[in-house]
This record gives sequence, C-alpha cells and structure tokens, in this order.
Amino acid sequence: MMVRVALDAMGGDRGPDELVSGAVQAVNEMDIEVILLGDEGLLWKALEKQTRATDRIEVVHAPEVITMDESPVEGVRRKKNSSIVQAFHLHKTGRVGAVVSAGNSGATMTAAIKFLGRLKNISRPGIASVFPTLKGPVVMMDVGANVDCRPQHLFQFGIMAAAFSQVLFGTEKPRIGLLSIGEEGGKGNVVVRKTHEYLQKSSLNFIGNVEGRDTFQGHVDVIVCDGFVGNVCLKLSEGLAEAVVAMLQEEIKKSVMAMTGYLLAKGAFDVLKKRIDYAESGGAPLLGLNGTAIVCHGMSNARAIKNAIRVAAELIKNDVNGHILALLRESNYFEVAGQQNNAVTAGSGS
Amino acid sequence: MMVRVALDAMGGDRGPDELVSGAVQAVNEMDIEVILLGDEGLLWKALEKQTRATDRIEVVHAPEVITMDESPVEGVRRKKNSSIVQAFHLHKTGRVGAVVSAGNSGATMTAAIKFLGRLKNISRPGIASVFPTLKGPVVMMDVGANVDCRPQHLFQFGIMAAAFSQVLFGTEKPRIGLLSIGEEGGKGNVVVRKTHEYLQKSSLNFIGNVEGRDTFQGHVDVIVCDGFVGNVCLKLSEGLAEAVVAMLQEEIKKSVMAMTGYLLAKGAFDVLKKRIDYAESGGAPLLGLNGTAIVCHGMSNARAIKNAIRVAAELIKNDVNGHILALLRESNYFEVAGQQNNAVTAGSGS
Repeated sequence: MMVRVALDAMGGDRGPDELVSGAVQAVNEMDIEVILLGDEGLLWKALEKQTRATDRIEVVHAPEVITMDESPVEGVRRKKNSSIVQAFHLHKTGRVGAVVSAGNSGATMTAAIKFLGRLKNISRPGIASVFPTLKGPVVMMDVGANVDCRPQHLFQFGIMAAAFSQVLFGTEKPRIGLLSIGEEGGKGNVVVRKTHEYLQKSSLNFIGNVEGRDTFQGHVDVIVCDGFVGNVCLKLSEGLAEAVVAMLQEEIKKSVMAMTGYLLAKGAFDVLKKRIDYAESGGAPLLGLNGTAIVCHGMSNARAIKNAIRVAAELIKNDVNGHILALLRESNYFEVAGQQNNAVTAGSGS
Repeated sequence: MMVRVALDAMGGDRGPDELVSGAVQAVNEMDIEVILLGDEGLLWKALEKQTRATDRIEVVHAPEVITMDESPVEGVRRKKNSSIVQAFHLHKTGRVGAVVSAGNSGATMTAAIKFLGRLKNISRPGIASVFPTLKGPVVMMDVGANVDCRPQHLFQFGIMAAAFSQVLFGTEKPRIGLLSIGEEGGKGNVVVRKTHEYLQKSSLNFIGNVEGRDTFQGHVDVIVCDGFVGNVCLKLSEGLAEAVVAMLQEEIKKSVMAMTGYLLAKGAFDVLKKRIDYAESGGAPLLGLNGTAIVCHGMSNARAIKNAIRVAAELIKNDVNGHILALLRESNYFEVAGQQNNAVTAGSGS
C-alpha cells in the first residue's frame, strides 16, 4: 500500500508556499502521497506555482489556523476545522499513516494524543531529536514534551529512542547513555540515579551515564533525559552554534587577510553549516503514539519539510511502533519498572 | 591589609609546575600574596624553575593528596594533611582570605562547607560559572553543587550570582533570567514555575524566563538554574565548541583552498578560541560560604590559575559576601520565600 502523509500546510513561520514546495519535493523524490491541509484556495494557488509533478498530492480544506501563541488545549478544542485537528482526523480514520506539522507544537502534541492515543503500555509520548556528532547522529529524548518525569518515563524514552534509532539509522543494538553530571551511576539527581538502576537491570544496550560534553562525540546512539533538560540542551546547542559563527564573523571583519581566508575556506563552512543544521534532520518525531507524528521547527524551509515527510514515511514503512512494543517486551521493562510506578515522585509527574 | 590567597598546589591534571607558574604570574601582576600548599620539596623545586620574582609566595607543607576519583567526604575526613584540607584550615584561622583549587572539586566543596560554614541565611552554597556571550559575560548558577533544588534555593542562586556580577563586572542592577523552556512564566517544571513566582515578587531586576538559546545572546547578566541543568549546560557548551572546531578542521583538510583560507583566517580563529576559552574566565567561585573558594577545571593551565587567583582577590577586596547579604535583605527574599521552606519538594532536596 502506498504510504500517505498529511501535512499541516498552514503551520510554520514561512507560509504555505514553502510548505507546499517541501511536499512537492517529497512526492518527486519518494514513492509516497501527501495530503495538504489548509485553506484550499491558498493551497491550490501555491500548487500552481510549482513546476514539478504534483499528481500524488491532494488538498483537504481545513481553513482554521491554531496560531503559535494560542493555548494548545484551547486551540484543539475550539478549532475543529483547523489544519492540525483535521490532519489528525485523517490519521485516526486511516486515510494517512502520519502527520507532519511546523505549526504550534503544543497543539500538535495535544491533538496527537487526543486523536491517536498512546501506544499500549507507554505512559508518556515524548519528542526525539537527532543531533549531529563527530561520528554519526545521536537521538536525544525527551526534548520538550514532559518536564517533570519519573524514572520509568525516562526508561521508556530510552526504549522509544532506541527503536527510532534502529528504524531510521539501522542501528542494531543502539548504545543508550543516560544524561547526567558524572560518569558513575551514583551521580545525578534522584530521578536520574533511579533511572540508572533501572537501565542497568534492563537488557537494553545501556552503556551508563554520559555527560553534556559527550553529546557531540558520537559514543552513543541514544541519550536519555527529561523534557526540561533535553529542551534546554537543544536550544542551547542552536544558540551556541549561532553565537560561534557570529563571533567568528565579527573577528573576521576586523582583518582583510582573515576575510580573504574566510572566502577561501567558505566551502568548509558551508559543509559544516549543513552538518549542524537542524533542518537536515527532518523534524522531531513524537514517539509513543498509536500512529506517527512529526513536529517541525516553526522556521522550517522546504528542505526541512521534505526531510520530515521522508522521516515520517520511514517510520511508517519500517513500523517504528512495532519496534517500540518489541523492545518494551525484550528490555525487561515490566520486570524492572512495571511494578514500581509510584516508587519515586518528582514534581507533579502523573 | 595585603590580600592573601591559598593555592592547592597539588590539585589538577597538569602537576605542580603549572600551578606554581600561575601563582608566580599572579603575584607579579597583582598586589597580593599567595600561599602554596603541597609537598614542600616538590613546590620549592617548582619555584626554583621560575625566572620571575617569587618573594610574595610562601610554601606550607601539606603532602597528602585527595585524588580526583576519591570520595570527597572520605578524602576530607581521612586526609587531614592534604593540600585541600590544609588550605581551608589556613582560611579558617584567618591567614588567607580565599582558597583556589584545581583538584577534586567535590572535596573542595566539602572542605569549604566543613571549615568555613555557610553564609548566614544561605541554605546551599553553589557554583557560579562565567559564560562568554556576544555582548559580555553572563553568570550561570548553579553549575553543579546542588542537583535537587527547591525554589528558594534557585532564588538564592539568583541573589548570589547577581552579587558576583556586581562585584566582578560592576553590573549595577544585574538582569536576572530564569532558565526554562519557554518565555512565559507558566512554562517549565514545577520547581522552575514556583521560582518564577518568587523572583517576580522580589525586588531583584528579574527579566523573566530565558531559554537555552538566549544563553549566548547577552540579554541578561545572570542565568538561574539548578546544578544538574547548569552542569549539563556547561559541559554541553564545552563539548559543542570543541566539536564545531573539530568538524571544521575535518572539512578543511579535504581541500587545499580551504586549508589556505584557514591559515589566512587563523588569527580570527585564535581570537574566537580565546573568547570561548573557559580558562580565561578564571575558575568558578563557590558562593554562599563564610569565606571565598574558587573551583578550577582539572585541566587548568598557568593562565587559568592566575585568572582564578585574580577573581579570588577581587571577591575579597570588593566584599562579595557583603553584597550577597545586602541583596538578600533588599530583594524581599525573606518576605517572599522565607516562610515557605517546605512548600514545594523535588527529589531529595533537604
């Protein structure tokens, strides 16, 4: 059966033209179909501007928009005819196998959980993000969906991220690291220390704690953390990469020789930029759903959208959810953490 | 009175020669005295190698070493004649006004609290670290001393870091940001949301939440976070900066033209490296003590040690502890958070 992906064509900061262009690139490069959701007048106009084949693209009218600053829960409840809500509606009824959105990410998560529900035995869906490293990609999870977590949630993030790494990168036994502030198992906060115990007892390929500086070394395939820490890491990395480039440009402007050098070395800078460019990684999947959803950066350009659609298609074709359920069984999760759901509390975790 | 600083001359990965060299640079550049603690045979030998004036340097024999992988509490209890313990002994008896160590940082903290005690009304001393930004330095606190914190601890970190910023950088009303995962006060985990309420009610110059990506923008003078998140940020930044440089070098090696460009632009790279080099910032003070202590990176070179001694001298001369106590009173801390010490618990915070 042909893989079909719904794209929220109203979300994001760059407008429908950019999103539609990403969808067109996707159908031209892959054997898939895309359904665009949004104001059909706008979307047809955007499609007409395209010079390439668009015969595997369909438009579904869903003119309402949940804006970036709107309350996710409110927006999803009130705007039944919004592109986000209608996209998940199509997913629920089986017309598509995945939803991709660069719109209000809170609303995307809310609608995803509301319409698709959680995967069996998963307590909390979370967001996985791919980081570039010196050796290859590493998957960090959670990067923002769950701010107050318990050890069993972190354990599950490890399982889901490992399944994602298997499916997307073909990693056979993903090496899992637990983000902490020292290598020994006794280091870290209460929740992290308990998580270390769990992962140690599991049959996952757990290699122990990793520190912030290990993130970009490529020693592990998966880094486990709560959504607060993960989100701070994600944004800190973006900010630091930008700051390093800005500082370098500032210094270079001060000298003609350095400027000449910069122009000669520009090719290397461009490759580097591509390597650390988050648009390349193709959005961040919300894992742990009865279905597939990809959350994209609001600033996503056509290439980022195309890559997100590609990731969505891979997740469907290679059955990431089947992998998650299998790993959940094989990891000894239930024996290790299944009976201890109330053992450690931190904050308002439910 | 002459400012006198004790240097643990056995701590650190580079050996006594490097540390002694830093001390010699310090007394040659500043109007201070330094007492070196360690094996006196080794230290006199290291001093003899120096070509510059060493008349304001004294040696105190303290031959035991608390190693990097030793348990801090055990080490401090058992090794009474260690350089770290003896350094704080000198501080306690008033012979020095500060201790600088690049040794086991846990042992330094343990000894500092044991021998000096906490500053009045400070619940938890914490480590402040200076980050370079596009506009000027920003102080992040805590970066590792306290992993499970309550809102009033974070509130106090803000006060201490602000006092540090006043004293070291002359910031009049330091702008304080709270590290979270969204700009609105409702964003973040339970502890951060409560801290936001406290800071909002205080008379500090609180500008609200900041995100990971704002860290290097220079919009604030102080960033408040718990020691787990702060330590991850610190190490992630170091790791990312190194990875970016390594990736760039890798790309550059692939092309002669880029290589030529790199050589021409090298001056700019060097200045950049200096700007983001943590050795420049001069160690991280442990604030909230009845005294002054600076924790240095194990890899500290002579320049880093000299800068740490400089920071220690500044903190003594400009009475950072007086500033902390004054800000504690002026900030409305006691009215806002003083009576709520048990309102919110997170993990095993005491």
